[in-house]
Amino acid sequence: MKKLINDVPDVVAESLAGFGRAHADIVKVSQDPRFVSRADGPVQGKVGLVSGGGSGHEPLHAGFVGKGMLDAAVPGEVFTSPTPMPIVEATKAADGGAGVLHIVKNYTGDVLNFETAADLVAAEGITVRSVVTNDDVAVQDSLYTAGRRGVAGTVLVEKIAGAAADRGDDLDAVTAVAERVNANVRSIGLALTDGTVPHAGEPGFVLPEDEIEFGVGIHGEPGRERIKLEPADRLVDRMMDAILTDLSFDGSQVLLFVNGMGGTPLSELYILFRRAAEVLDERGITLSRSLVGNYVTSLEMQGASISLLKLDDELTQLWDAPVHTAALRWGL
Amino acid sequence: MKKLINDVPDVVAESLAGFGRAHADIVKVSQDPRFVSRADGPVQGKVGLVSGGGSGHEPLHAGFVGKGMLDAAVPGEVFTSPTPMPIVEATKAADGGAGVLHIVKNYTGDVLNFETAADLVAAEGITVRSVVTNDDVAVQDSLYTAGRRGVAGTVLVEKIAGAAADRGDDLDAVTAVAERVNANVRSIGLALTDGTVPHAGEPGFVLPEDEIEFGVGIHGEPGRERIKLEPADRLVDRMMDAILTDLSFDGSQVLLFVNGMGGTPLSELYILFRRAAEVLDERGITLSRSLVGNYVTSLEMQGASISLLKLDDELTQLWDAPVHTAALRWGL
Repeated sequence: MKKLINDVPDVVAESLAGFGRAHADIVKVSQDPRFVSRADGPVQGKVGLVSGGGSGHEPLHAGFVGKGMLDAAVPGEVFTSPTPMPIVEATKAADGGAGVLHIVKNYTGDVLNFETAADLVAAEGITVRSVVTNDDVAVQDSLYTAGRRGVAGTVLVEKIAGAAADRGDDLDAVTAVAERVNANVRSIGLALTDGTVPHAGEPGFVLPEDEIEFGVGIHGEPGRERIKLEPADRLVDRMMDAILTDLSFDGSQVLLFVNGMGGTPLSELYILFRRAAEVLDERGITLSRSLVGNYVTSLEMQGASISLLKLDDELTQLWDAPVHTAALRWGL
Repeated sequence: MKKLINDVPDVVAESLAGFGRAHADIVKVSQDPRFVSRADGPVQGKVGLVSGGGSGHEPLHAGFVGKGMLDAAVPGEVFTSPTPMPIVEATKAADGGAGVLHIVKNYTGDVLNFETAADLVAAEGITVRSVVTNDDVAVQDSLYTAGRRGVAGTVLVEKIAGAAADRGDDLDAVTAVAERVNANVRSIGLALTDGTVPHAGEPGFVLPEDEIEFGVGIHGEPGRERIKLEPADRLVDRMMDAILTDLSFDGSQVLLFVNGMGGTPLSELYILFRRAAEVLDERGITLSRSLVGNYVTSLEMQGASISLLKLDDELTQLWDAPVHTAALRWGL
C-alpha cells in the first residue's frame, strides 16, 4: 500500500487536524467526539444542517461545512459509519434553536446511527428531521444498502438545502427543499480502478486492464455489470441512458454534475462533461448549471459519476446563493 | 492504459470543449489556434495576463482564466509546449491596450515559444513583458529545463499578479509583483506513482512498492533521489527542510500551499498540511494563508508538492482579492 500517511489508525484524526488548521476561518474540529462544525456556529435562529458518514469521500462532508451549506459534519472511520455519539454532539453544535435537519446518504449503518442520534437529541428538546438521499440509479439494493444508494447528488442536496436555511426558511421548509432536490436528482458512477482502504491495505477489487465496473458504489460496491472499457463517449451514453430512463428530464433546465472519484485527471472529467452536454442537447434538455470536479470521492479510485438535477427557478436561485466552505465557494 | 478518453489525438481538444461548455460564463475556448480567454475579455485599460504550457496539469492554466487572475491561457498537447502561433493569438485576445504580461513556467520549450510569440506581437505594437517562474528547489537543471523548474508556485504568481492587474496597476507594476511572488515562493514535490501520457500509453516511470521519487518534476522528471517510502510526517520534514534551507522564512507570515499531483486523495494532502503547519510552528513562522488541493497536477500521478510563499501586507491583500475562475473562486 503506497499512501502519504503515518500510522493507519491515525489517518482520519490527522487528516481532520490538517483540515481544521487549513480552514480555521471556516470550521472548528472536535476530535473526541469527532465532528466538524462552523467556526461561527451555531447560528441563532437558523435551521442547522448536519451530514456525515464514513471518511474516504473527501471533500464530502467536512468540506461542505460553512456559511450557506452545512453547520456540522460527522466523519466516521474510512468507509465506516460514525457512531451515534458524535452525531449527537454535532447536532447540538448545529442547533441554533430552529431545529436541525440530518442529511443522510442511504447506507444502512448511516441511517441507523443518525436515527439513534436523532432520538437522543429529541429527548433533549432539539427537533430533528431527516432526509435520506438515494440518487444512485445503478442498483436497487447493494452491499451496505437497502434501496438505492446515496451518492454524489448529496452535495446538491446539501448546497441547496443549506441556502434555504441561510435565507431563513423554517425546518419544514428546509426539509421540503432537501426532499425536492433528492427527488429530482439522479446519478450513476463507474470505476476503472478501486481505491485502497488504509486498514485493508489493498484495493477492494482489481479489474483486468480492459474492464470497468459500471454502476459502482462510492465504497467500491459492485454496480450493474463489469463491462469492457469503451471510448469515453460510449460510456457517457450508457450513463446518461441509465439516468434519463429512470426519470424524465424532457424540456427541463438541468444542473449537470460530473464528479471525479479521486484518482481521475480533471481533463478526463471534462471529456465526460463534453459528451454529457451533447446528450442533453440531443434530448432537448437545457444545460443551465454545471459542476465538475472531485467532490464525492472513493479515496484514489479512478472513475467518475454523472448526476443530473432538474432545476426550477427556486432551486436555481438557491444553487446560485453565496456559499463559503472549504470545497465549494462563491459570492463570499 | 486505462483512461476515460476517446481517440488519443482528441484528448486536449475534447477536454477543452467540455471545459468551455461547463464554464461558458467565465471563458471562451478557441480550438484553432488553441487558447482559452475570458468570456468578457479583453478588459480595456487593464494589463492582460497570459500563461500556458503543456496540458496534463489541469486545472493549470485554463482553470485560472477569469476575473482577478489570467486573461488567457494556452494549452499545448499533453506535456508539450504550445507553439508560438496560439500564444500570439492569446496575447492579442488578452490585450486591453495596457500591455500584456506572459507568465511562463521555466521549461526550455515554453520559454522559447513564449519569447518568439512576444517578438511577433511586439511587431504588431503590443507591449509584452515576461516573468519566468522557477520555484522548484529540487534540482538545478532537469530533463526539460535549464535552471530551476517552474511548478506549483506559478499558481500563486498568477493569482497575485492577476489581482494587481485587476486593481489597475500598470504593466511595470504588475510585472514587479509577479517577480516579487516568484522570488518569495519555494516548492518541492514527490511522487509515489507516475501518470500516463495518453500518447505514450504507459507511465514514464514505475517505482517499486516501497520507493518514491523525492523532488519529482510535474512531468515525472527525476528529482533529487529515489528513497524508501517513509511515514508522511518524515517526508514532510524532508520537504520543509529543502524549502527552508533554500530561503529563510524566519519570522515571516506565509502562505502554505499543499498541492496534489492528481491521483492523491484530498485526505492525504491534509495529513501533509498538518505536519507542514507544525514545522512552521516549530520554526516560528506564522501560517497566515492556506491552499490545499489539486491545482498543478501531473495527470493521475500519486504525489504532492509543498509550496511556501513569504507574504507581506500587499501580497496578502492581493491574495485575498476577489477571483472568479473555474478552479479558484472567492468574493465573486
